[in-house]
Amino acid sequence: MALADSETAMDVASLMQDIGDRAREASRAIALASTDTKNAALQQIAANIRARTADILAANARDLEGMKQRGVTGSYQERATLNAARVEAIAGACEDIAKLTDPVGDEIARWQRPNGLDIARVRTPLGVIGIIYESRPNVTVDAAALAMKAGNAAILRGGSDTIATNQALYVAIAEGLEAVGLPADAVQLVPVTDRAAVGALLTGLNGTVDVIVPRGGKSLVGRVQDEARVPVFSHLEGICHIYVDGAADLTMARDIVVNAKMRRTSICGAAETLLIDRAKADTFAAPLVTALQEAGCEVRADEAVRALVPSAKPATGDDWGTEFLDAIIAVKLVDGVQGALDHIARYGSSHTESIITDDAAVAAQFLNQCDSAIVMHNASTQFADGGEFGMGAEIGIATGRMHARGPVGLEQLTSFHYVVRGTGQTRPA
Amino acid sequence: MALADSETAMDVASLMQDIGDRAREASRAIALASTDTKNAALQQIAANIRARTADILAANARDLEGMKQRGVTGSYQERATLNAARVEAIAGACEDIAKLTDPVGDEIARWQRPNGLDIARVRTPLGVIGIIYESRPNVTVDAAALAMKAGNAAILRGGSDTIATNQALYVAIAEGLEAVGLPADAVQLVPVTDRAAVGALLTGLNGTVDVIVPRGGKSLVGRVQDEARVPVFSHLEGICHIYVDGAADLTMARDIVVNAKMRRTSICGAAETLLIDRAKADTFAAPLVTALQEAGCEVRADEAVRALVPSAKPATGDDWGTEFLDAIIAVKLVDGVQGALDHIARYGSSHTESIITDDAAVAAQFLNQCDSAIVMHNASTQFADGGEFGMGAEIGIATGRMHARGPVGLEQLTSFHYVVRGTGQTRPA
Repeated sequence: MALADSETAMDVASLMQDIGDRAREASRAIALASTDTKNAALQQIAANIRARTADILAANARDLEGMKQRGVTGSYQERATLNAARVEAIAGACEDIAKLTDPVGDEIARWQRPNGLDIARVRTPLGVIGIIYESRPNVTVDAAALAMKAGNAAILRGGSDTIATNQALYVAIAEGLEAVGLPADAVQLVPVTDRAAVGALLTGLNGTVDVIVPRGGKSLVGRVQDEARVPVFSHLEGICHIYVDGAADLTMARDIVVNAKMRRTSICGAAETLLIDRAKADTFAAPLVTALQEAGCEVRADEAVRALVPSAKPATGDDWGTEFLDAIIAVKLVDGVQGALDHIARYGSSHTESIITDDAAVAAQFLNQCDSAIVMHNASTQFADGGEFGMGAEIGIATGRMHARGPVGLEQLTSFHYVVRGTGQTRPA
Repeated sequence: MALADSETAMDVASLMQDIGDRAREASRAIALASTDTKNAALQQIAANIRARTADILAANARDLEGMKQRGVTGSYQERATLNAARVEAIAGACEDIAKLTDPVGDEIARWQRPNGLDIARVRTPLGVIGIIYESRPNVTVDAAALAMKAGNAAILRGGSDTIATNQALYVAIAEGLEAVGLPADAVQLVPVTDRAAVGALLTGLNGTVDVIVPRGGKSLVGRVQDEARVPVFSHLEGICHIYVDGAADLTMARDIVVNAKMRRTSICGAAETLLIDRAKADTFAAPLVTALQEAGCEVRADEAVRALVPSAKPATGDDWGTEFLDAIIAVKLVDGVQGALDHIARYGSSHTESIITDDAAVAAQFLNQCDSAIVMHNASTQFADGGEFGMGAEIGIATGRMHARGPVGLEQLTSFHYVVRGTGQTRPA
């Protein structure tokens, strides 16, 4: 018997609340688990994934067949596709996370007060992390492993297109947790594809969810940012700028600009706008634009650039502040570093910006005054990545100003508390 | 002509949005202001407050007269009352904040990558801070000064009972900002008492407000926590526990328990529940309960305690997890440190808890496993205070797990970003 819509909605709400309650309960156990126990779980999960490769690929084949029938194709389908090598990479990533330093229990700071009190700021787990993602099944394991290693419980809500694959991977996770005596509820996979499940998760499930991490395209992230009643670690867009100052070394600038745009055009750290100092436009504009074009990039430029390099296409107003995620770049002349800062303040997305200059004072001004999560000097914006920062792994990049900003690695998935050690101190009146 | 209700609501919404937009714009100027400029502004504000003492006291007299007519009395009225000494204390607090170290620009961490990239994590201002408070006029200046010193813009929404006093203090702030060339909009006081103004602020005013700090009673904080669509630094309650372990020094325990409860009963760090190790109850219960009673505290105890100390009143179920904020304490026997941890997990508010013991292993277990913002060993819970922690000043205490936890001082009013310094690095394919 089919349920009426209102009954289904109630079912989903109560199912999700139960998941939240179990996550909160399990979060106490994973928070107190030793580093060795957590690492053993991660290694067991990797072993389970390898042992279950056939099951996982069979489930993935069912998902792909369903996507084919629904007409889902292209890059979305490609990202959903697993093969033996990709399954091995998922297991390997889990082992890599086991090797990272456990942040829980770290003393971030410690000091003594004149009355003898010893105060330490110590890292603790955050609690329960909700991860909402789209087609990539590797997120199921990567996100769970990062959350676990930092002592957190995780609630995973993957895309409906890959639910069979995610469930096959989840078996490996649950059995790995139980093998070391941790509750399987420390990682839970939402078992329904109902869209209302996302809505419920975004409410925070009566305070059981501490933070939401969306992994996916702009429409998913936008929905999460708009609807979430709990903190969100995310970036909506990576509209990254490179400013080539008049005091730049042109060869360095050319190499960095081409790399920042063209190494991979689909990542959030790819440059989308090139700003060139008007004072050196006569010398810089043509070689920079030509180098981009020779690398296969479409250049959309303002009139001042096109007057110097007529092969550039005309930019429209919409091109400033657009995340092309493609071999397209917008190019504009600006009046020095202040002009670049003004343009970025207006059109940027607070993700990553880079200045190319040999003038230390100009670089310092840019680094101090540019209010983005990552600001760079003489380096490619494509380094905006937790792995490149030495964090080992990241669950995403955040452009918000609270708690986590920039790459979200293990440390950013922790909180802290104060540990005060006394010898009988009482507070004077 | 009186406006229709819907027109008033629209007016308030548009007034508040304008305040938000101006705060966001002014936040850029205060974020980039030098330490010297910010300190000069704070000193000027202190001087202005002293020079305007007569105006401030006259405004306060009008507020108090209004409160009298509306029948507002007691501690609420007392907190709203200024005199010359209190005005001087407000000015002095402003100067004290000028003396604190500026957190903006601090390198929290810095490291090098194998490819030569130099990565620093550097403190930046948070942005725009909304402060919603009740009758204490000193919050107008304290909160503004702390927000400013950390490079933030502030929007102040004080209680309607003290709006004249707050406006008189605000003149001193605005003139102090302008005297050093900073925009007066870096601190704004909401000029209307309409309740809808709070609702608008809690929406975040289209992304212009980064965080809300409520300062006041439980109903204010509860409303802010329920309705805010932006992060909130707050604690709803301080249900602080002291656990006297069987291995405690009884004299130390007695001194700390009496101090933690009775030094000031109205502050959030006051102890509300005393847990005593059942193993030593025969020895400990009577002297601890008697000491509290002799200090003027009403003791409400469970049956096991009352069997040992019949003078204690019987506790009801409601007494566990109650923030008395008065000379009342709930007392219970528990089964060792694990019993204490279980009780605190069930009834605590994640604020501050203290263990009294001479057993280092038991202390370590408590400090590691108790998930509160502040955990203490052999010290009074009344030390839960930013000043006592050496932070210089605090805007409040937060029990949430995101960004700020425990005392919220200058550092907690900052964010950070990454500064990456290269020498031409491009990212390999």
